[in-house]
Amino acid sequence: MNRWLLPEDIADVLPAEARKVETLRRAILDLYQSYGYELVAPPILEFLDSLLTGTGSDLNLQTFKLVDQLSGRTLGLRADMTPQVARIDAHLLNREGVTRLCYAGSIAHARTPVGSSAREELQIGAEIYGCATWEADFEAISLLLKTLSVAQLSKVYLDLSHAGVLEGILDGQVTAKSDIEALYTLLQSKDRSRLAIWAQRLPAKSADALMALTELNGPCAQVLANAKKTLPKHKLIDEALAHLEMLVLATAAFSGDVELSIDLADLRGYQYHSGVMFAAYVDQLPQPIARGGRYDHVGQAFGRSRPATGFSMDLLTLASLAPLAQRKPAIVAPWIDDALLTSKIGELRLAGEVVIQVMAGDPVESAEYLCDRELVKQASSWEVKKK
Amino acid sequence: MNRWLLPEDIADVLPAEARKVETLRRAILDLYQSYGYELVAPPILEFLDSLLTGTGSDLNLQTFKLVDQLSGRTLGLRADMTPQVARIDAHLLNREGVTRLCYAGSIAHARTPVGSSAREELQIGAEIYGCATWEADFEAISLLLKTLSVAQLSKVYLDLSHAGVLEGILDGQVTAKSDIEALYTLLQSKDRSRLAIWAQRLPAKSADALMALTELNGPCAQVLANAKKTLPKHKLIDEALAHLEMLVLATAAFSGDVELSIDLADLRGYQYHSGVMFAAYVDQLPQPIARGGRYDHVGQAFGRSRPATGFSMDLLTLASLAPLAQRKPAIVAPWIDDALLTSKIGELRLAGEVVIQVMAGDPVESAEYLCDRELVKQASSWEVKKK
Repeated sequence: MNRWLLPEDIADVLPAEARKVETLRRAILDLYQSYGYELVAPPILEFLDSLLTGTGSDLNLQTFKLVDQLSGRTLGLRADMTPQVARIDAHLLNREGVTRLCYAGSIAHARTPVGSSAREELQIGAEIYGCATWEADFEAISLLLKTLSVAQLSKVYLDLSHAGVLEGILDGQVTAKSDIEALYTLLQSKDRSRLAIWAQRLPAKSADALMALTELNGPCAQVLANAKKTLPKHKLIDEALAHLEMLVLATAAFSGDVELSIDLADLRGYQYHSGVMFAAYVDQLPQPIARGGRYDHVGQAFGRSRPATGFSMDLLTLASLAPLAQRKPAIVAPWIDDALLTSKIGELRLAGEVVIQVMAGDPVESAEYLCDRELVKQASSWEVKKK
Repeated sequence: MNRWLLPEDIADVLPAEARKVETLRRAILDLYQSYGYELVAPPILEFLDSLLTGTGSDLNLQTFKLVDQLSGRTLGLRADMTPQVARIDAHLLNREGVTRLCYAGSIAHARTPVGSSAREELQIGAEIYGCATWEADFEAISLLLKTLSVAQLSKVYLDLSHAGVLEGILDGQVTAKSDIEALYTLLQSKDRSRLAIWAQRLPAKSADALMALTELNGPCAQVLANAKKTLPKHKLIDEALAHLEMLVLATAAFSGDVELSIDLADLRGYQYHSGVMFAAYVDQLPQPIARGGRYDHVGQAFGRSRPATGFSMDLLTLASLAPLAQRKPAIVAPWIDDALLTSKIGELRLAGEVVIQVMAGDPVESAEYLCDRELVKQASSWEVKKK
């Protein structure tokens, strides 16, 4: 076998591209810092039970399992950092006030996610704990949009939904997890004929509302107006629509080319979300570039149920959409034993220059640097000259 | 079970500490960039065969194994990125000239390494390919020492060794891998009585040289002088000692508090090294803080045997030795709908300030930021005031 072969949908990030990822990573983490988000770094491996706590069955299928020699128990290689960060908030920090956390780290999927061609991602994201009101959701959405603008994505489509609408329609009449998941799939695909059959188990009013959901998508103002007309009166539904209305109003003021829409039947793919949910799309990708929303109940299994909202995305995908930066200019220097040269090189490097010493007369090859200058000996000093 | 429990020797990196790691990570990668190292990011998972290519049996025991659902084959969660980076040089970049690569990423160990209490590390390192001469080894050593000085480690002990010395003594008379590994252990522990028994399989001259090795450790000049006197004449040994002499001379000029020594019997723990090998120690740790050396043969299995030298270390351990930075000052702002406030906050954030908006009147709690100022409404503007 060829030992350089990599597993399917697993790849190296090579020079120039890796630098682009690193530059973007720093800019995005700096953005989160400017909002007061604290950085955390959970481990790549945990007990499987902890990783899957409060999440759906999708995440279980997507998680690589392995055996811990020290405990004999099953570990998971994380496929999502969000539950880990919720664990940190609930159990380790254990604060009463609002806590903002951000993170960037490798995750892996046992199966290639739909619409993707990569099983490994560099997940970057931000979460707010301890605030149940719409302001936290709005800050998450703003930060998501600003992240995309740091990556120079000019045109973004933001799709909103809200778990409260369906919850209000079902009103506790369907509880089996498998039934709910089947319903999500039917709603997502807008398969009205099969949805009608599924809905026969419900009273006519609820069934009609379910059918109406499949048409409640499109421009925000129109969808919200139609939803108020066609959906039944229910505290959860009213709250959800009011919540969405606040967010739409606030987000409309956001500068940049963002097209907002609502799809009240889009609930699938949100592994553990409650409340408002959102996904950002760009023209270059079939799947969302970023996804987020509220997931108030996740911390419960870790001992404290705190309000929580946030978002995450794959930095490798994000970087792949950005143009390659110009190669960084560099200075070439000979490798000779000369104290003046050594100190000159040290100075240049400290001043932010890249200085590459030529070893054994070999050519310098680089995808990341452009050697456009060289250090040349002049009488008693070393000077930088154009090559 | 408590779902917040983590597996043995696996831990979260919490706020403030995680920022310290991030700050150090950037400073170190910037240092490598100033030397012209290109950044690469190999995947965390690979086929086990590829990960272990050219390495010793230690790495196999240390590697977590899992099954790839897509291929049915065994994958490894990397316990070391060095062989991956060698693969990138040998197979993907496929250059003729000198190539400098650096990397930073998560690795995991199935068993806790001796002297450590962590099975997960953030490995950071740099490698030079295509240069067989001592200059490359010296650049690796310099960069290692500069890395430690970026981390503000004031006192460093650098221990040098060279695989060529033992190779010359054995002169092809012992080839079984298990015999060599047993010998490494005996030499490392300086167990002279058992070493004498082991050495009975060799001619008297070689056996005497092996016994002499156990005493060839200490200050460089003295060890090199003794080695020349006591070790047999052999091309490999002469070359190794000359190589070490060059490095000692060059490194002596290195500014900073570095104590150099040589231990010619220290060959264990270098998984796949040939040629010169080095380990850096600090007072705070029993195990080396960083380790490196030459490993010219690793690329062979990937199709091209290129000269290679470099080093790596665990950034989490390195950061744990550095003092916590002061909390970053931050400005608190109210959450109200006011266009002037929004634009003032945006300006401050762009200017590098941290501005935290208070949600639903909840207190802001943070280990990373110190809220020492607030935005206050003055007539028709918002001003930053001391709290």
